[in-house]
Amino acid sequence: MRVLIIVSAIGLAMGISSCNNGIEHHADTAKATTDMIFPKGDKITNDNFRGTAWLNYLVENDSVHNINIGSVTFEPGARTNWHYHKGGQILLVTEGKGSYQERGKSVKIIQEGDIIKCPPNIEHWHGATPTDAMTHIAIGTNTNIGGAVWLEPVTDEQFAHSK
Amino acid sequence: MRVLIIVSAIGLAMGISSCNNGIEHHADTAKATTDMIFPKGDKITNDNFRGTAWLNYLVENDSVHNINIGSVTFEPGARTNWHYHKGGQILLVTEGKGSYQERGKSVKIIQEGDIIKCPPNIEHWHGATPTDAMTHIAIGTNTNIGGAVWLEPVTDEQFAHSK
Repeated sequence: MRVLIIVSAIGLAMGISSCNNGIEHHADTAKATTDMIFPKGDKITNDNFRGTAWLNYLVENDSVHNINIGSVTFEPGARTNWHYHKGGQILLVTEGKGSYQERGKSVKIIQEGDIIKCPPNIEHWHGATPTDAMTHIAIGTNTNIGGAVWLEPVTDEQFAHSK
Repeated sequence: MRVLIIVSAIGLAMGISSCNNGIEHHADTAKATTDMIFPKGDKITNDNFRGTAWLNYLVENDSVHNINIGSVTFEPGARTNWHYHKGGQILLVTEGKGSYQERGKSVKIIQEGDIIKCPPNIEHWHGATPTDAMTHIAIGTNTNIGGAVWLEPVTDEQFAHSK
């Protein structure tokens, strides 16, 4: 079966999951409200994040490509909880300045243009800094193996090293 | 084994393959020469493309994540040859306006913010339009299955429909 799926980022964020017979062009709308290529999406309300963060779920996992893709924006002070990915993850920092830490290592400052490879089952967290916002494209890999496993929050003391 | 690999896009383009003990920060250098998040990289000189195109190879394939990532910039008139991917591909259009066509279907115009899922083994091509440049992040998926298989060039007659 030949399947063409062309969808826009903002379309997905609005719940339009796929389109086989045309293209959803929402880029102009997006540009009208933000300079970002991919709009910041929806405010994250689950307990796996602290502070204010936004998710634009660009590509949902499927059994064909075995990856998922989301653009995540962390306002200053925001971060994920500690977690790991059964199949690994790759981060492409697209805007701003933020933090990345693996368990037992020091906090690394990351910024626009940086790329981070998080191997499977390595406990880590990522987010903004106390004073800077950060946006990254997060690519979950080998999603056929499994997704994120969420752990405890990053404490204020741990986060204070992000500067 | 715990491995942290943080590298910059431009670092990879320059042949710096990985860095386990620090972060390569070349974003400022990149911004000094271009407004793009990821610099356009090196001019593509192989026969799988027509016209002038550029590749910044952001993430090389590895057996851990099973994807590869490149930012590809097509100047007006440039395009890939016809090809297919044994493991599939996902395109994130990050700048400009371009073309995407699957064998037997009409040319689709794609633009900044669009996302294209190319399933495995579907013959297709992508590129600029005759008058517009286009940049996309290309993510090769399931690279453990195999990579791109290159076919014949897109003819000028086929490409003329890209408008």
